[in-house]
Amino acid sequence: MHPPMSFTNHMDRRSWMKTAATLAAGAAAPSIATQARAVQNNEDAPADVTRTLAAYVVHAKREDLPAPVRREACRTLLNWAGCAVGGSRQETVDIAVRALGPFSGPRKASLLGRHERMDALHAALINGISSHVLDFDDTHLKTVIHPAGPVASAILALAETQPVTGHDFLHALVLGAEVECRIGNAVYPAHYDRGWHITGTAGVFGAAAAAGRLLGLSEQQMRWALGLAAVQPVGLREMFGSMTKSFHPGRAAQNGLTAALLAKENFTSSDAAIEARAGWAHVLSTACDFDQITRGLGEHYEILLNTYKPFACGVVLHPSIDACLQLREAHRLTPEAIERIDLSVHPLVLELTGKRAPRTGLEGKFSVYFAVSVAIAAGAAGVRQFTDEWVQRPDVVALRDRVVATVDPSIGETQARAVITLKDGKRLETFVEHAVGSVERPMSDRDLDAKVRDLCASALKPDQIGRLIETCRTIEQLRDARVIADAARP
Amino acid sequence: MHPPMSFTNHMDRRSWMKTAATLAAGAAAPSIATQARAVQNNEDAPADVTRTLAAYVVHAKREDLPAPVRREACRTLLNWAGCAVGGSRQETVDIAVRALGPFSGPRKASLLGRHERMDALHAALINGISSHVLDFDDTHLKTVIHPAGPVASAILALAETQPVTGHDFLHALVLGAEVECRIGNAVYPAHYDRGWHITGTAGVFGAAAAAGRLLGLSEQQMRWALGLAAVQPVGLREMFGSMTKSFHPGRAAQNGLTAALLAKENFTSSDAAIEARAGWAHVLSTACDFDQITRGLGEHYEILLNTYKPFACGVVLHPSIDACLQLREAHRLTPEAIERIDLSVHPLVLELTGKRAPRTGLEGKFSVYFAVSVAIAAGAAGVRQFTDEWVQRPDVVALRDRVVATVDPSIGETQARAVITLKDGKRLETFVEHAVGSVERPMSDRDLDAKVRDLCASALKPDQIGRLIETCRTIEQLRDARVIADAARP
Repeated sequence: MHPPMSFTNHMDRRSWMKTAATLAAGAAAPSIATQARAVQNNEDAPADVTRTLAAYVVHAKREDLPAPVRREACRTLLNWAGCAVGGSRQETVDIAVRALGPFSGPRKASLLGRHERMDALHAALINGISSHVLDFDDTHLKTVIHPAGPVASAILALAETQPVTGHDFLHALVLGAEVECRIGNAVYPAHYDRGWHITGTAGVFGAAAAAGRLLGLSEQQMRWALGLAAVQPVGLREMFGSMTKSFHPGRAAQNGLTAALLAKENFTSSDAAIEARAGWAHVLSTACDFDQITRGLGEHYEILLNTYKPFACGVVLHPSIDACLQLREAHRLTPEAIERIDLSVHPLVLELTGKRAPRTGLEGKFSVYFAVSVAIAAGAAGVRQFTDEWVQRPDVVALRDRVVATVDPSIGETQARAVITLKDGKRLETFVEHAVGSVERPMSDRDLDAKVRDLCASALKPDQIGRLIETCRTIEQLRDARVIADAARP
Repeated sequence: MHPPMSFTNHMDRRSWMKTAATLAAGAAAPSIATQARAVQNNEDAPADVTRTLAAYVVHAKREDLPAPVRREACRTLLNWAGCAVGGSRQETVDIAVRALGPFSGPRKASLLGRHERMDALHAALINGISSHVLDFDDTHLKTVIHPAGPVASAILALAETQPVTGHDFLHALVLGAEVECRIGNAVYPAHYDRGWHITGTAGVFGAAAAAGRLLGLSEQQMRWALGLAAVQPVGLREMFGSMTKSFHPGRAAQNGLTAALLAKENFTSSDAAIEARAGWAHVLSTACDFDQITRGLGEHYEILLNTYKPFACGVVLHPSIDACLQLREAHRLTPEAIERIDLSVHPLVLELTGKRAPRTGLEGKFSVYFAVSVAIAAGAAGVRQFTDEWVQRPDVVALRDRVVATVDPSIGETQARAVITLKDGKRLETFVEHAVGSVERPMSDRDLDAKVRDLCASALKPDQIGRLIETCRTIEQLRDARVIADAARP
């Protein structure tokens, strides 16, 4: 149907893991020269990419959403809300509120997990920052986009300025995730390799589409909204390691909402902002498979590929933690009962997380020895375990020194083998093929609830957390989506 | 000093004219493949580009500004204010105010030429839009950046929220223009050819630097401000012809101001956002000469290369209009006295502006025949001449039909020859080497005043306009820069 594509963008978890590893190791982005060699241009861009996408977003029927899609959208919403509440007291968020608060308009919208309110545009920014600051938010592994941050932050803020039903809210979340992930699929990995932080550059489209849907944009207005989104990409990978990284999804939410608001008043833009020669894809990427954007709209849903991190550390550690937690649960293990733990791991594990004696919570994220030990001791490896306190606890330190991790070339990046020898001589063993939290082995609802409880514990009371979980899970039955914000208020 | 550069960026008016012509003709941006062939990467980026630039902006002494620089800055300010007032009633601006007004914070900052006020961040956006919407703003011809829009819009809004002396204001304007134009010099034309609207992508740095200077940022904070600017580029050339084009400088002003405000509160970012491997230059351009950013800081000033359009139409028409206006002034010509006008022009003139019988003011901008005729009839070719009324006026239509334009291969793009034959048989001739408004033949102060009077006529009373002109010209002597905003209020 379309002219030959520059390359096929197929899901490749292996290459994604490599990217993640490269980033974690602080390696530089590929040079421009390398990128240039990879350039294969689609000289004849297909017509109507933006038009097709806009028409879909405007006309998609919420009744058509399959049950698994709606269920996954609720999980995405819950994970987002938990991360935003959990991150809301971080210094990054405090600073943004302090710097921009004096410019806030009517304070109609909530900052999740905080007492302040701001206007909807600023609330979109702040909640987007909060949801990403712990690096614990959802991940569309095909593109490493964190879909909820830009989209949910934009539409919850909007839902506090106009009535939005829970059903419409969830549908807009699905559509926004669809738009950003499809655009991401089309340009990944070329666009990401170039140095863009894809959550902020593709995310702005998702935010614009979702907000535009709730604002009731016409097809023409939706095209303009996508055009206004196209000119406002946010985020460079250079910022990883600084507060500005979290600014990206927040600003993408704010920019997308701005785009939709302007389009609603007929602020004109291009009708072909994505595919035009001087449009987003050609300017921001060295390759693009436009079919990924328009093929099978309404037939398959990207949100079904969304994942949630069960452990508050880099993904390379997840298989090892998962293995030890499985043995702990099966055998009610305590640190004291264990003589030694032998791990067989992928080379990246020791390369990235080989720190023997971490001293702080942050350093603990780079120690496979600590990570599995705290998992055994606490039965979890969430934000409340990667703390100075846990890192320094004598029983955890003692166990940590009895962990032996060995590189095994036959172990894949998503795998780990754990052999635990007990003091009574008993030998327990397990092998993880795909760590929990992957597409293949998603987090259970119960685990997700536990993660959210953990994240929210310092900001909300237990019954409040329960209400937040219940609200996200049943959002479709609720008459007004703003209850999500109410439930996340301390 | 630095490793070999990808290419030298030297001023080439010819290539600039070609770019302008290509755009006016609606031609597509170069394909990615073409760009890829042009890629030559600077594998070893120089260290300290961002650091050097930030240190300069923080420490530059206002006393060191040479008089011609200060004078040109006043002219830049005046032209910007005139354009913003002149454009302030356009539909594009009305829509933006209507769409975003409900989100405005404390209404401390003025919208030039309008009665409403908004918070400083929104005012920066709106004034930036107003200043560009007529396509009549200043141009740094080396890069086709419109320097004032992003910078002046940001710092005037800031000056309405904290005291800023006129002297400091003008200095910040110079520094902001310096930063954006130097960054533009470093990546032009590769960056622009890729499809970026450089005013919005480089402009955000200028706005951040100027606002950051007035906020008293430390060197570290200024580096962060530049980093926060780097992740917020605005603008694709695809938007030319829609309202979104004017959004670019406005949003760049708003983003730059946001960056500076965040940095002031120690929102951290990269220290090397411009030159890093996954930083702005590598990600947004296929070539970069970093020396253009750091060489001769404080020794030469880009604002001295700023220009102002004397005529409210594409630059290809300027030599022909200039020639006819010169003859009109020298011989007190009227349309009735003229038998015929013979123009010798560069091929682009007929290619782009060869419309014989325009019917609207907008079409008039694409008719060399109308343009020179209205210039003879009105003695000007400003915004008030490119109207439906003038296009339809019988004496102008009659003269228009007596204009003959002939392509002459020996005529350069900046040149034109006009031969006017009077009804009494007298033959008048002149040749323009560089049209007025060029670097070589800048607009006189008197002409600039007249342009501003023309632009402001529908929004301000004559004595108000006089005060605005006086304020901009004497800004350095004024204790509080907010008087500019006061003078531009209807």
